[in-house]
Amino acid sequence: MLRAGVDVGGTRIKSVLCDADGSVLLSRTDITPSRPGEGIVDVVADVVAALTADAASSGHDGTVGAVGVVVPGIVDEAKGLASFSANLGWRDLPLRDRLSERLGVPATLGHDVRAGLLAEHRLGAAQGVADVLFVPLGTGIASALLVHGTVVRGNDWTGEIGHVTVDPGGPRCGCGRLGCLEAVASAGAIGRAWRDAGHDGDAVDLVRTLDDPAADSGSRSDARQIWATAIDALVRVLASACAAAGTRLVLVGGGLVLAGDVLLTPLREGLTAALGHDQTTTAPAALGDRAAALGASLLAMEAAP
Amino acid sequence: MLRAGVDVGGTRIKSVLCDADGSVLLSRTDITPSRPGEGIVDVVADVVAALTADAASSGHDGTVGAVGVVVPGIVDEAKGLASFSANLGWRDLPLRDRLSERLGVPATLGHDVRAGLLAEHRLGAAQGVADVLFVPLGTGIASALLVHGTVVRGNDWTGEIGHVTVDPGGPRCGCGRLGCLEAVASAGAIGRAWRDAGHDGDAVDLVRTLDDPAADSGSRSDARQIWATAIDALVRVLASACAAAGTRLVLVGGGLVLAGDVLLTPLREGLTAALGHDQTTTAPAALGDRAAALGASLLAMEAAP
Repeated sequence: MLRAGVDVGGTRIKSVLCDADGSVLLSRTDITPSRPGEGIVDVVADVVAALTADAASSGHDGTVGAVGVVVPGIVDEAKGLASFSANLGWRDLPLRDRLSERLGVPATLGHDVRAGLLAEHRLGAAQGVADVLFVPLGTGIASALLVHGTVVRGNDWTGEIGHVTVDPGGPRCGCGRLGCLEAVASAGAIGRAWRDAGHDGDAVDLVRTLDDPAADSGSRSDARQIWATAIDALVRVLASACAAAGTRLVLVGGGLVLAGDVLLTPLREGLTAALGHDQTTTAPAALGDRAAALGASLLAMEAAP
Repeated sequence: MLRAGVDVGGTRIKSVLCDADGSVLLSRTDITPSRPGEGIVDVVADVVAALTADAASSGHDGTVGAVGVVVPGIVDEAKGLASFSANLGWRDLPLRDRLSERLGVPATLGHDVRAGLLAEHRLGAAQGVADVLFVPLGTGIASALLVHGTVVRGNDWTGEIGHVTVDPGGPRCGCGRLGCLEAVASAGAIGRAWRDAGHDGDAVDLVRTLDDPAADSGSRSDARQIWATAIDALVRVLASACAAAGTRLVLVGGGLVLAGDVLLTPLREGLTAALGHDQTTTAPAALGDRAAALGASLLAMEAAP
């Protein structure tokens, strides 16, 4: 029996098809229609059909026996409810049951960041570590927390560390408030600060400038200042969370982690300094932008073991 | 069968004796000897003997059938090890087994702040709430985290939010580092800042001055500034922890909570503003300075149900 894992993002739908052992047979990336709302049920059904067709044409046997779907926003995993997503345009959508009816197989609904953490814990860089804070740094910033080997659900806003205020007089966030972590330290915010300082490009260009001997000293100084401000804000938020939760591993994911040591080294050193001990380590995530889809496939296995 | 709960603090040992239903029959407060080290085994045994004698002389029947002991510092609950306390002078002390041998009854070892949270969850202000951050604000600052109804153990430094850096150029902390939360927002730190500003007294006097119409405007201005700085630092640390853990209730304990609404109102408003939602509420703890001893008696019940 095959299992499908589908990660519905704001712009892309990433999916994987796994065999009974959990090995990934193939994967897809499809475009998310603009604000699909309840139409997402048909969209995901089409993705699963396409995965099945891809599998058949690749000579894989078997039919899809279970589906896991993960979405952003507010998710009620226990009730299978996609409670709210501003970007995707749904509210209190019983996505799990609708999909299960539509596809005629068991379905599981999860949250994209929490599913990513689950995948990193079972298959990726957090294997064997029971207390983990997973932090995807990309266009936005979110987190998921593993405590005693269990992914924490908490309240509706669990993991929304991107919207914790770090600078009450700081830049305006997409959410409308001032100085959220996401408005200071996300890849998007870093790129905006870089352009506001009169430079071309985005966060990638800033990172390139940091240690580029060919860059003029003004550009390098601007780059270093914006970068240091972002990392300082991250350290403040992450240190407090790690201290309260007894986190052993901060696992950094998202597009920004491609910056490598220029991100990880000051983050690691900053966290050790801010915590006053070195029992919390910092490492890059391993599964890249497939983590959530893989997590979705793990959720599918839980539904139909 | 009776159960004893003993909370070994830096200056006082608080203890309770409970009956089979968990009702508190009587309680004691004894002085902690200076740096008892391994001698704490005899000290706790004497406290339990004194509780038993008190019980007999009050006409209570029965003998102590189980003991729970909680201590500060680093505790390995699973191994029953009091791993480290600078103040109390022990290192890797197998306190659980030593006590059990000495007293001839089952013993359980716990951590004082985590035991306080357990008591607040079972008997106090956190009943029925599964996701709680317990924050005793006193001479020092620590925390304990409840996730899905379970007290989080994590790493050795779990709950040491008092030593998260909030102001790298701030006052020196007792731990030697600069600008720890505890050096800015503990009752001790607030009193020191108040005296450094040229006033007499401690945090209690500062709180009294905040809204005292008879106080001169300079004193009130100093008091408000020190208080606002402390609350701002608390909000920053607590908001990040709550966002990551999906906390529904911040339960404030310790001596500082006696300040009442002058503490709780700005803390509550600050947290709601910093989180950007109101799913995290703030309330005072209910069990006062008996919370940890009651938690110890609950641990004793777990050892000998």
